Order: sequence, then C-alpha cells, then structure tokens
Amino acid sequence: MDQQLHFLTLSTPSLDAARRFYSEALGWAPALDVPEEIIFYQVAPGLMLGLFRSDKFAADLGPTWSEAEVQGLTLAHNVGSRDEVAAVVAAMERGGGQVLTAPCEGAFGGVFHAHVLDPNGVVWEVAHNPGWSIAADGTVVFG
Amino acid sequence: MDQQLHFLTLSTPSLDAARRFYSEALGWAPALDVPEEIIFYQVAPGLMLGLFRSDKFAADLGPTWSEAEVQGLTLAHNVGSRDEVAAVVAAMERGGGQVLTAPCEGAFGGVFHAHVLDPNGVVWEVAHNPGWSIAADGTVVFG
Repeated sequence: MDQQLHFLTLSTPSLDAARRFYSEALGWAPALDVPEEIIFYQVAPGLMLGLFRSDKFAADLGPTWSEAEVQGLTLAHNVGSRDEVAAVVAAMERGGGQVLTAPCEGAFGGVFHAHVLDPNGVVWEVAHNPGWSIAADGTVVFG
Repeated sequence: MDQQLHFLTLSTPSLDAARRFYSEALGWAPALDVPEEIIFYQVAPGLMLGLFRSDKFAADLGPTWSEAEVQGLTLAHNVGSRDEVAAVVAAMERGGGQVLTAPCEGAFGGVFHAHVLDPNGVVWEVAHNPGWSIAADGTVVFG
C-alpha cells in the first residue's frame, strides 16, 4: 500500500457556506463542484479535499459511522483494481482494523469500495475508481 | 493562501495501536515518532498525517473543540511568519469562520498558531513553525 492519502472527505452541512469560505475568502479553485452534493478542492499533489453534504456523506458511509471516534471524516486510499481493494482491507484487518462495509459498489461516483475503522476509530475508505487518476505533475483527474 | 494542506491531525487514543496498524500492517514509514505524544507519517507531498494522543490533542486545541461538527480532527495550514497567521485568520473570519483561539504560542512543537472553526464546524489551525519546511521534492522536514 503506497503511503499516500487520496481523499479527505468531510461531512458538510452547508455547501454554500463552504463556497464562501474556501473559494471566496481563501481564494481556492474548486476542481469539481456537484451542486447539492460535493465540492472538491485539490490540497496537495494527488490529494483532494471533498466537502460532502452531510446527508450524502451519511448515505455513502451507511449506518455505521457513529462507531467512529473521529466523526464526520473519511480518509480514502485508492488502488488500481477491485482485487487490490480486498488485499488492502485484509492488511488493515490484520493490523486491528474493523470492517464496516465489505467491498461493494458505492452509492456515488462509480467507485467500488470498502470502509474500515482503524483501531483508533478513524474511518478509511479503500476504493477502486476507474474514472480517477493522478497526472505526472500531481494533478488529480476525474474521468 | 496557497491551496495546500500541511497537517492532518487526528485524535488517537492508542499510539501503540496506531503503530501496529500503519507501520506494521500497512508498511508505512513514520517521519517522526514522539513516544506517548504523536506519530507523523507523510501521506502526500508537503503533507503530514499526525496521530496525536487524545489527551495531548485536547490540550493543544483547548476547551473549545466540542463546538466542532467534525470531531477529533484538525487541518493545518502553515505560513511563513507570525503576521501571515493573523492575515489568514482575518480572511477566514471574512468567510464565515469563527476564531476559537486567537494567534498565540502553541503548547507543543514550537509553533505560533490560531484555531478557526470553518462555517461547517471543521477546525483549522493556522500556524507559523520556524522548525518546519518542505524540501523541493515535497519531503516535509522537521528542523
């Protein structure tokens, strides 16, 4: 598993407030803005910050998110195939992770993913997304 | 304000469990491990993931963290001077942010920092840390 975070996703009650804060006050350029769903800002090479409307965030994660110690956040690591999703999930289980969602089709974005709670209560998404890639200069590309 | 996240810090009840999960099971190399305090893993160019023992996390953030919608997390943006800390905090306030801690000396790590709640309840640390830099290849360096 590469030592790289690909998505940092936050539960976000108001996307309008997020736009005012990040785009207008801080001057950040959104990479993708899906109205009433999610706004992405690239915040490091290969890494997207996703501000995901709270109801969609909860729907994507399923009913298990209240088990998390760190709430309102998922960290995501993307891999190149569905088989690799299973392999990373298995490694996480060996390290004390608890599978919240076994590998399955995601509700949004065309991903195949699983959710694992790390031993400190941090939710990780392990995903294969054929429509996502990182260009040589670190720019994240949605297909 | 550059569109770059510098630290992603998580409240972590057990550093031993974190080492088993990230270092042993996932094979990640820690950049810095301060026993009984914090473990850092670099997870993107210019970006550190910090696993901060929960009591120290709470002490660093102060008594205000329960106001956060996203709990157990701080996102940090570093700047080049103490004056820039004040400037970024002012921009965040204009965007609907709420100052939790006015710019002051931090409890750990030699930083001068402030904490601001974004309008969706995400805690940002804005910091000047003379002992921190990013090398040309994206490697984060602690002084």
